Amino acid sequence: MFIDQALLRAVQIAPNRIATKYLHRSQTWAEFLNTVQCVASGVSGLGVKQGDNIGILALNSDYYLEVLFASSWGGAPIVPVNTRLVAREVAFLLDDANVEFLFVDDAFVGEIESIQSHMKNKITCIYMGENICPPELVSYSQLKKSEPVPSAEVGGETLAGLFYTGGTTGRSKGVMLSHDNIMSNAINAAPVMDYGVDTVYLHAAPMFHLADMASTYAVTLAGGQHCFAPRFIPQAVGETIEVEKITHLLLVPTMLNALVNDPSSLKCDFSSLRRMLYGASPMPEAVLLKAMEVLPSVGFVQGYGQTEASPLITTLQPEYHVLSGPKLTSAGQAALGVQVQVMDLNVQEVPRGSVGEICARGGNVMMGYWGLQDATNEALRGGWLHTGDMGYMDEDGFVFLVDRAKDMIISGGENVYSIEVEDAIYKHSAIKECAVIGIPSDKWGEQVHAIVVLRDGASLDEAELITHCKEYVAGYKCPRSVLITETPLPVSGAGKILKNELRKPWWEGLDKAVN
Amino acid sequence: MFIDQALLRAVQIAPNRIATKYLHRSQTWAEFLNTVQCVASGVSGLGVKQGDNIGILALNSDYYLEVLFASSWGGAPIVPVNTRLVAREVAFLLDDANVEFLFVDDAFVGEIESIQSHMKNKITCIYMGENICPPELVSYSQLKKSEPVPSAEVGGETLAGLFYTGGTTGRSKGVMLSHDNIMSNAINAAPVMDYGVDTVYLHAAPMFHLADMASTYAVTLAGGQHCFAPRFIPQAVGETIEVEKITHLLLVPTMLNALVNDPSSLKCDFSSLRRMLYGASPMPEAVLLKAMEVLPSVGFVQGYGQTEASPLITTLQPEYHVLSGPKLTSAGQAALGVQVQVMDLNVQEVPRGSVGEICARGGNVMMGYWGLQDATNEALRGGWLHTGDMGYMDEDGFVFLVDRAKDMIISGGENVYSIEVEDAIYKHSAIKECAVIGIPSDKWGEQVHAIVVLRDGASLDEAELITHCKEYVAGYKCPRSVLITETPLPVSGAGKILKNELRKPWWEGLDKAVN
Repeated sequence: MFIDQALLRAVQIAPNRIATKYLHRSQTWAEFLNTVQCVASGVSGLGVKQGDNIGILALNSDYYLEVLFASSWGGAPIVPVNTRLVAREVAFLLDDANVEFLFVDDAFVGEIESIQSHMKNKITCIYMGENICPPELVSYSQLKKSEPVPSAEVGGETLAGLFYTGGTTGRSKGVMLSHDNIMSNAINAAPVMDYGVDTVYLHAAPMFHLADMASTYAVTLAGGQHCFAPRFIPQAVGETIEVEKITHLLLVPTMLNALVNDPSSLKCDFSSLRRMLYGASPMPEAVLLKAMEVLPSVGFVQGYGQTEASPLITTLQPEYHVLSGPKLTSAGQAALGVQVQVMDLNVQEVPRGSVGEICARGGNVMMGYWGLQDATNEALRGGWLHTGDMGYMDEDGFVFLVDRAKDMIISGGENVYSIEVEDAIYKHSAIKECAVIGIPSDKWGEQVHAIVVLRDGASLDEAELITHCKEYVAGYKCPRSVLITETPLPVSGAGKILKNELRKPWWEGLDKAVN
Repeated sequence: MFIDQALLRAVQIAPNRIATKYLHRSQTWAEFLNTVQCVASGVSGLGVKQGDNIGILALNSDYYLEVLFASSWGGAPIVPVNTRLVAREVAFLLDDANVEFLFVDDAFVGEIESIQSHMKNKITCIYMGENICPPELVSYSQLKKSEPVPSAEVGGETLAGLFYTGGTTGRSKGVMLSHDNIMSNAINAAPVMDYGVDTVYLHAAPMFHLADMASTYAVTLAGGQHCFAPRFIPQAVGETIEVEKITHLLLVPTMLNALVNDPSSLKCDFSSLRRMLYGASPMPEAVLLKAMEVLPSVGFVQGYGQTEASPLITTLQPEYHVLSGPKLTSAGQAALGVQVQVMDLNVQEVPRGSVGEICARGGNVMMGYWGLQDATNEALRGGWLHTGDMGYMDEDGFVFLVDRAKDMIISGGENVYSIEVEDAIYKHSAIKECAVIGIPSDKWGEQVHAIVVLRDGASLDEAELITHCKEYVAGYKCPRSVLITETPLPVSGAGKILKNELRKPWWEGLDKAVN
């Protein structure tokens, strides 16, 4: 399969429908195809050859989408850069991926010099901002004036892009996804979300992240429309949903939590919304219940996966989003083309109900990690993708995540899964945000520690919170210490709470590795 | 991908739901898996090695489904034999496919001797009938008592089966489909038909044919239930729909026509039926309209494809099945994972609205024809599957078939597409069945000839029918001769009208090849 297929299908079934709408601009799928052909031509004119990796460091926009499809059209794999990285990290990533050409927008044009100063390779930057192109950069609008070229017809098991994992857990690794990987995922994802030509999708989560990028290809394959929120600001997202009559979007749990707790967003008209996909990190049940209450006519779909799986592994369909439903806290069942098993350390399936590592096989599973054969062998040992996530499967094939393996707290010899404790904490009405981590304890090895942000005007003390938790979880799982703070919790570019940053001050200088 | 995945997904999400129900028997998916493991073991015990092709010649049944999945479980490609072939043809096919082990049921056990007498290879037959196993055959029920074995874990681009094309157009060719081909199709088909764990599918069309077999894998992948009609008898099918509360089935146009014209079938309760897939040959509009009228609550889905595409190429979804709708006579749009283009002789896409050959690419396109490299190269030239079907695509990407390329009549230099003429004829209320063919004509080269079967009690003469046609199609397309007969039209095992048999007496001894 070719990523081009997704684009060509949109052009075939919806040539005169809107492909992208952003700021004052919009273009149909027929026009979008022409844009892609011109950008691919321009990129080739810069000296980019088939197989050369090209980078993009930008906020969400229609241009971002153009560059993604121009990359596959011309056969030059894309390297989307996490927008939260500091210059030194970006430099490492671009060097690692041998990127010599980088697309940047107004948000990052000012960082080029600093990035370059940390790099071994020399990069040429293409300016895709909204202002006049700085003289030392290549102008994207000029590039677009190139003559359209036919597709390089690159596809199948050829590399389509390098997608660096968050960088939140040690050294950032470049996940190699092929055309087949990305198209397999798009075909799995499109029906789950019921994407069609009447879909109006809002890119509200960052486009560099696979959670959103899954929809990039699936919405295109279905001939739907793309809209863009450059940054996640709850009120702005609410207003865009109202104005553009958004039908589908993806939010990560922290975003969904922010949206349904933002009074100004809730004044917006959400009646066009049909489906909301959430995922990329565990969803506290209380947040989901709140969202279901605030948006009763939306069909919620949970997608569980990871970059290494392009990303979808399991999905929980709207019909299981029932108050007090037995599957509500599940991550759902295997996506159609993905085989899922919960494994023990010997890559043998564990009995239903037993916790093990969630593993997956299918056309969506990555080629490997760029330049990291050992890590690849480890992740794909026994022919299965090892997600590193712990969970169990019930008798109906629903996967329940207990926690990221590396996020488990071992306290007094007992395993404590953070999400369980966070779920309990979120049940308290005073809580706006929380994170549970393990901190050093002479007595317990690790002890359960909670960091919480209260809602405006709410009050709560440590003892009250611990008492509250005892109603929901065993005593050994309850926080032994609580930090109540007004500082929002640190989140990654993808909106995941950065637990490593929360852990760092506690563990520095100690033996335990900071993950 | 592995065909095992489909089976294992059903077992994972619906272990205690019914997998198969037939006669007095039923089994859950967990039980079905065990059966498959035992059959695969038994087959291996007979001396069948991985990669050895095994044949099956039987009417629809639960055993048929078991053998299909045991074949992929054990890594021995399946060769389903068309049940309408005569012994000599079966013998050719089995020799061609190097089949040494053949599953047969009661309908065919009496033909073994005759088949063997025409064969070069010696075959061992496994008796999967409902009676006592004849002494010289291997007993299927004994085979099932073997110890279950783990999967051979054969998949990906490995051969999963040989599916011989009808044999209605010259030498029958073995279409080689891989595990990836069959799974790609299943993943494309499952959402189109909305298959899920609550699906109760009736195998009413023959299971050896890819039209039905697409659902074999897609229903399984979705964890649905299989029911079986051994032969297509309208009343029996109607009764099974009522009794088993069938939700989904596939019928070829001739079957659908028979069903909606059978008074005793129409007395049955069809209220459980949610979706009906039809395809495998062009659907006359009048038949479809009648079906939509008789079954107003059913969502009709047209599937267009061919064995070489595993088989789905395009689908027309229920929302386009609207009376007088502009897309009603279309074969629909490209399935999600299939790229479709209408091509000229140089494999270049023709403009929208122009007639050309329908071509397809995707994970579903066959590996090639068994032992026929030239035919493979021809069918897959330029990287596209050439369907041999002529059609055009409209501005919204809907494909309209004009006719099988080889079925076009050239009369007085004008191209006449049989389906157009048949559509016109079917609009007459006296018509039960019809077929339009070209017959030799000194004046026109070929002339349009119609063979029609009237409804019981109806009367119509040649002149009346021709006058009727002139209301709907150009004069040169109207039949110049009509045969009104009481003999039902000859149909293939898959229910397609065998036009070559109708043409044969007219063309014998003449230059034009009988296709």
